[in-house]
Amino acid sequence: MTTEAADVVRPASNALPKALRDKLMRAPVAGLSAQLRKRGLNNVTIEGVRPLLPGVKMVGTARTLRFVPNREDLFASHGGGYNAQKRLFDAVGPGEIIVIEARGETGAGTLGDVLALRAHVAGAAGIVTDGGVRDIEAVAAVGIPVHAAGAHPAVLGRKHVPWDSDLTIACGGTTIRPGDIVVGDDDGVIVVPPAMAEDVVDEALAQEDEDAWIATQVAAGHRVEGLFPLNAQWRNKYEQSRAEEPNR
Amino acid sequence: MTTEAADVVRPASNALPKALRDKLMRAPVAGLSAQLRKRGLNNVTIEGVRPLLPGVKMVGTARTLRFVPNREDLFASHGGGYNAQKRLFDAVGPGEIIVIEARGETGAGTLGDVLALRAHVAGAAGIVTDGGVRDIEAVAAVGIPVHAAGAHPAVLGRKHVPWDSDLTIACGGTTIRPGDIVVGDDDGVIVVPPAMAEDVVDEALAQEDEDAWIATQVAAGHRVEGLFPLNAQWRNKYEQSRAEEPNR
Amino acid sequence: MTTEAADVVRPASNALPKALRDKLMRAPVAGLSAQLRKRGLNNVTIEGVRPLLPGVKMVGTARTLRFVPNREDLFASHGGGYNAQKRLFDAVGPGEIIVIEARGETGAGTLGDVLALRAHVAGAAGIVTDGGVRDIEAVAAVGIPVHAAGAHPAVLGRKHVPWDSDLTIACGGTTIRPGDIVVGDDDGVIVVPPAMAEDVVDEALAQEDEDAWIATQVAAGHRVEGLFPLNAQWRNKYEQSRAEEPNR
Amino acid sequence: MTTEAADVVRPASNALPKALRDKLMRAPVAGLSAQLRKRGLNNVTIEGVRPLLPGVKMVGTARTLRFVPNREDLFASHGGGYNAQKRLFDAVGPGEIIVIEARGETGAGTLGDVLALRAHVAGAAGIVTDGGVRDIEAVAAVGIPVHAAGAHPAVLGRKHVPWDSDLTIACGGTTIRPGDIVVGDDDGVIVVPPAMAEDVVDEALAQEDEDAWIATQVAAGHRVEGLFPLNAQWRNKYEQSRAEEPNR
Amino acid sequence: MTTEAADVVRPASNALPKALRDKLMRAPVAGLSAQLRKRGLNNVTIEGVRPLLPGVKMVGTARTLRFVPNREDLFASHGGGYNAQKRLFDAVGPGEIIVIEARGETGAGTLGDVLALRAHVAGAAGIVTDGGVRDIEAVAAVGIPVHAAGAHPAVLGRKHVPWDSDLTIACGGTTIRPGDIVVGDDDGVIVVPPAMAEDVVDEALAQEDEDAWIATQVAAGHRVEGLFPLNAQWRNKYEQSRAEEPNR
Amino acid sequence: MTTEAADVVRPASNALPKALRDKLMRAPVAGLSAQLRKRGLNNVTIEGVRPLLPGVKMVGTARTLRFVPNREDLFASHGGGYNAQKRLFDAVGPGEIIVIEARGETGAGTLGDVLALRAHVAGAAGIVTDGGVRDIEAVAAVGIPVHAAGAHPAVLGRKHVPWDSDLTIACGGTTIRPGDIVVGDDDGVIVVPPAMAEDVVDEALAQEDEDAWIATQVAAGHRVEGLFPLNAQWRNKYEQSRAEEPNR
Repeated sequence: MTTEAADVVRPASNALPKALRDKLMRAPVAGLSAQLRKRGLNNVTIEGVRPLLPGVKMVGTARTLRFVPNREDLFASHGGGYNAQKRLFDAVGPGEIIVIEARGETGAGTLGDVLALRAHVAGAAGIVTDGGVRDIEAVAAVGIPVHAAGAHPAVLGRKHVPWDSDLTIACGGTTIRPGDIVVGDDDGVIVVPPAMAEDVVDEALAQEDEDAWIATQVAAGHRVEGLFPLNAQWRNKYEQSRAEEPNR
Repeated sequence: MTTEAADVVRPASNALPKALRDKLMRAPVAGLSAQLRKRGLNNVTIEGVRPLLPGVKMVGTARTLRFVPNREDLFASHGGGYNAQKRLFDAVGPGEIIVIEARGETGAGTLGDVLALRAHVAGAAGIVTDGGVRDIEAVAAVGIPVHAAGAHPAVLGRKHVPWDSDLTIACGGTTIRPGDIVVGDDDGVIVVPPAMAEDVVDEALAQEDEDAWIATQVAAGHRVEGLFPLNAQWRNKYEQSRAEEPNR
Repeated sequence: MTTEAADVVRPASNALPKALRDKLMRAPVAGLSAQLRKRGLNNVTIEGVRPLLPGVKMVGTARTLRFVPNREDLFASHGGGYNAQKRLFDAVGPGEIIVIEARGETGAGTLGDVLALRAHVAGAAGIVTDGGVRDIEAVAAVGIPVHAAGAHPAVLGRKHVPWDSDLTIACGGTTIRPGDIVVGDDDGVIVVPPAMAEDVVDEALAQEDEDAWIATQVAAGHRVEGLFPLNAQWRNKYEQSRAEEPNR
Repeated sequence: MTTEAADVVRPASNALPKALRDKLMRAPVAGLSAQLRKRGLNNVTIEGVRPLLPGVKMVGTARTLRFVPNREDLFASHGGGYNAQKRLFDAVGPGEIIVIEARGETGAGTLGDVLALRAHVAGAAGIVTDGGVRDIEAVAAVGIPVHAAGAHPAVLGRKHVPWDSDLTIACGGTTIRPGDIVVGDDDGVIVVPPAMAEDVVDEALAQEDEDAWIATQVAAGHRVEGLFPLNAQWRNKYEQSRAEEPNR
Repeated sequence: MTTEAADVVRPASNALPKALRDKLMRAPVAGLSAQLRKRGLNNVTIEGVRPLLPGVKMVGTARTLRFVPNREDLFASHGGGYNAQKRLFDAVGPGEIIVIEARGETGAGTLGDVLALRAHVAGAAGIVTDGGVRDIEAVAAVGIPVHAAGAHPAVLGRKHVPWDSDLTIACGGTTIRPGDIVVGDDDGVIVVPPAMAEDVVDEALAQEDEDAWIATQVAAGHRVEGLFPLNAQWRNKYEQSRAEEPNR
Repeated sequence: MTTEAADVVRPASNALPKALRDKLMRAPVAGLSAQLRKRGLNNVTIEGVRPLLPGVKMVGTARTLRFVPNREDLFASHGGGYNAQKRLFDAVGPGEIIVIEARGETGAGTLGDVLALRAHVAGAAGIVTDGGVRDIEAVAAVGIPVHAAGAHPAVLGRKHVPWDSDLTIACGGTTIRPGDIVVGDDDGVIVVPPAMAEDVVDEALAQEDEDAWIATQVAAGHRVEGLFPLNAQWRNKYEQSRAEEPNR
């Protein structure tokens, strides 16, 4: 028997504007990485994590959650019941991606299938943790994109105390601020500062178009000299080609 | 031409009682982990290993095998011919899981397809090694559950000398005694001391039932506050629900 | 619009003789490893790499490419434009396997889909890198066998400067000389010195035949004692069997 | 020419009460570790750090400082000038130990000789960082106890952005709260929750007395059976000995 | 007050014959390593350990002690009181070196000053552990040579259960059998199979003599070509030199 | 008996001009690091190495030597006799620092006391290796500055084949070209591109002067706000002070 959801709370939406989200869904993480590099940002990748399911694209805004190392007295005071982790999973809203600082510690889960489901029902866009995931088969089946450092059957208390949320955190070697844009695919997970997101994605999509055209030339047998990257001569051909097929 | 199996030896069975085995087959490793934690056992996971095939459940009793580091003089005296590894694979019986101490060394295989087949024919319930596996495609095809640290084409002598068996060993950071119960799924591999197995699995299955009911509430849109874990109010609803559907 | 491939250059072929290549395609890497070990070669495996797609066999001759650590002044002078990486991918010929020394550094890609395509069109037999791969989904779809240390969205300049090619390099803990034979499957990637390749593969194939026959005996229920490896008695049976079915 | 210190600010003292501090100065970290273990606290050691100078005892209360990973845009906004690190070193008071969360990252310094001197002049009792130290020779000469993960010549901006202070942090695998008692010697650095400090140190000193007496028995040639730990018979002798020499 | 040592037990001596021991005391570990390599033994070094005090030479025969990973139920049954560690330290005899298998785990001590003193009083020749040492300052002061992976204040139970002794173990990546000869200096610790010890040390000392003479030539300004190693011409000069000063 | 040094070859000097060398001897590596960072060079540190003796300053120009992983067939052909390592140590000239690419492999020595002595006699300014050193006590006593990853008794053949020299190499995570300036102290080892060396060292020495003055202010009790780094007000005082004591 299921109980009526009399206590469901719908949080205000921090989701990205649809147009921006749609563009980010089309831009590969590798392309975003290249554009961020041009702006001097080289350390914006969340490393050491893999997607639970291949071929899944993830786009959203960061909701941060910090776990500190398990210290047995602090777990007793802060770890149980309606702790910081539970509170954050109840608070997450549509379009948000929960990013968990688990210090690269793979010796415990940092979430399981119940919380993955909770986030999914709340409309969250994804979960990223540089720690472990338990119930991994069930979590993958929930349908929410998840990137993690691996599987582990233990509850988080084996290695962590959930401490606080909605603060700047470290995850997979980079820093994430609440509201940062987070994008993930099979290449990895990247953080895009919101202020530059429109420019970055527009340039990334333009570069994808160029790279796709370059790929067709390579498929035809051309060498990459002068072609990748485009020299003046090849760039002319590319621009000419775009003029002829503007809707490609 | 195949020779008649005139030399087949059927060892006495150390397999688990069927009822207990059936319950362990239904209990996720994550659930067993949580119950063992309640009994003060937090370091019972074999870490750094992955299943060769996803979605395969493994339950059995441990048959232990220890490899020591390759020292060239000791490999000459102990490594070849009918060594400790070969003898153990010949001795394994139905329902047993061979657990190999390979010290986390991934630079060599610790078994290949011939021995995996031998164990499978003997009715072994699985193989766990914190070292490598060679002929990994063929081993996966044999049909016996295997958890390992990775693939490597080299024979074990590159890094190991098979030394002894049927003693207490270390594997993946925990300790396994002969006869310990070993359970594996996609979350990992866990060791269950036999004396507490019945209580642990019964409580794990009860908790699974509770967690499944909680999941349906979450799916209906409820927050996890008070629900996960169950407070008094939610626990009443759960118990009421169980009374109404006792065979769920 | 695609441009005519007026600038396609067909390199001279360094591909293996067809007969040798066919034999190597049938010999598992584990089998080659065992034969090389008999010749005193134990450190010929490229470690820390995994195939992008399972079940793909790779055979070819090495074309080497060395990346040195990114030093910002050297990237400025050597990293852009038609750099050592681009030049090597333009020069690769049929049957060759590009082997990249990336020092086990997984924090950047070392190639992407455009270059993977270029190599494929040129008839290269594969790519091995002990660094990362970007556009990994697209690279896997190109159709050329690739073994790498993982996925990463960043361009190589984040961690590397492409420096030189066609020299002896280190990759995954072993040494590769230009022209060395490289073979890969799900067990890993191995290097076979050309001078011994014919003997090694012939013995490996003979051993496979022996191991296959041993496996059928094991499947029939026989113990491995005296059988694996074959003692005199079992060897007689094997030789008898081969005489009866010479085309097996 | 030195300027008059017209701007020196003397912070209020958070130093330990002298009597407690004196007892902690006499209690080896190993002894405190054993007593904390008896209270169920096993994960209270700051690991991966070494003292700059051997034979130096450090006792104080924690003042915490968190560095997050260097993200180039965040370093531009938060890293320079009078940043969180500089502010904390100006704020530290007598008897306090600055504990820096540097995520075990050894590829940059986290402080140098100027700040070490500042802390020393302010009466700080020590500095602990799980990152690097630059100007290490000069820092060691300042006279303030320092425990770090190693030396590195680079400024912190190479790997970090100093972010905030006076919050709960992670350091060397354990958790430190502002005001926690921190004790260091050649065995390592340990965290003592203030509420239990008096009991823990009193029991540690009592145990030291017992262990010292045990050591004299061992020096006289006695076996450790029954002696270490003391059985009833040996305990009687010990208590008798203490009665005879109460001021030992 | 100290009690008379009525319970001191003197074990039978397993110490090396004095002449062999004296020669091993004069042979650098690097020299022994080179001679063992000539006999095909390349994996005989105990790695990851450092001497507590520089400039101390250690020679003896191995007494082995194995620690398995801490599993909380097994520590309860096997870890306390007069456990395997205590029993072995009581049993060690003159000239023996206690070698502890601690699996490279540095997160706990594996011995402290009381047991180091016990071993020293019993005439043990040294202690080697690939784990940690607590009371490290006091242990260094005891006077017995100790090689360890580092310092840690925690008792062994944090990470280990002492399990058994006088069996073949792994330590620092090699294998040690009871009775193996163990030699340590600032270069490291090496294992010498007893059967070859006389030949190995004689050849090592002869090579030291040769290397010392080579060094004097180098000091005089000669190039190493033909000199290191000695070609026929230089070997003549060396032999001539030895003939002139036979007692050097 | 020592032979006359009839075969001594004095190489041409690649040593730094004396004035530049003297300035670099006075500039701490940390200061050089800060100036290189200002020029956009952040990855110029040779990491994972420690000086054999504390308090020793090292300045010179790089002579590079590359070791590739030991592959048993290649060691047979290239590893023995007058190999690439021996040839380079014979060729090194005054003021040069031998930098060895040993891929961070600590499981073998990469030089011993005979070659350290040879380099010292030849007037080399130092040796840097990201591998091990054997005969470490003797090497430290030779008198030439050495930075290494650790001690190991084995000859280089255990893990390496010396392959070539005088080419661009990787060492400790950065890239070194022949002729690059190399500076080492207790903070680490840094690479200075020759073209910018004069400017870098002049600015580093100026900054040292400023930092020393800042330190005296801190010693007098001043806070670091506005002082470190100098704001306009404090800068005035500094410049005033320099005017009053121009020879400080």
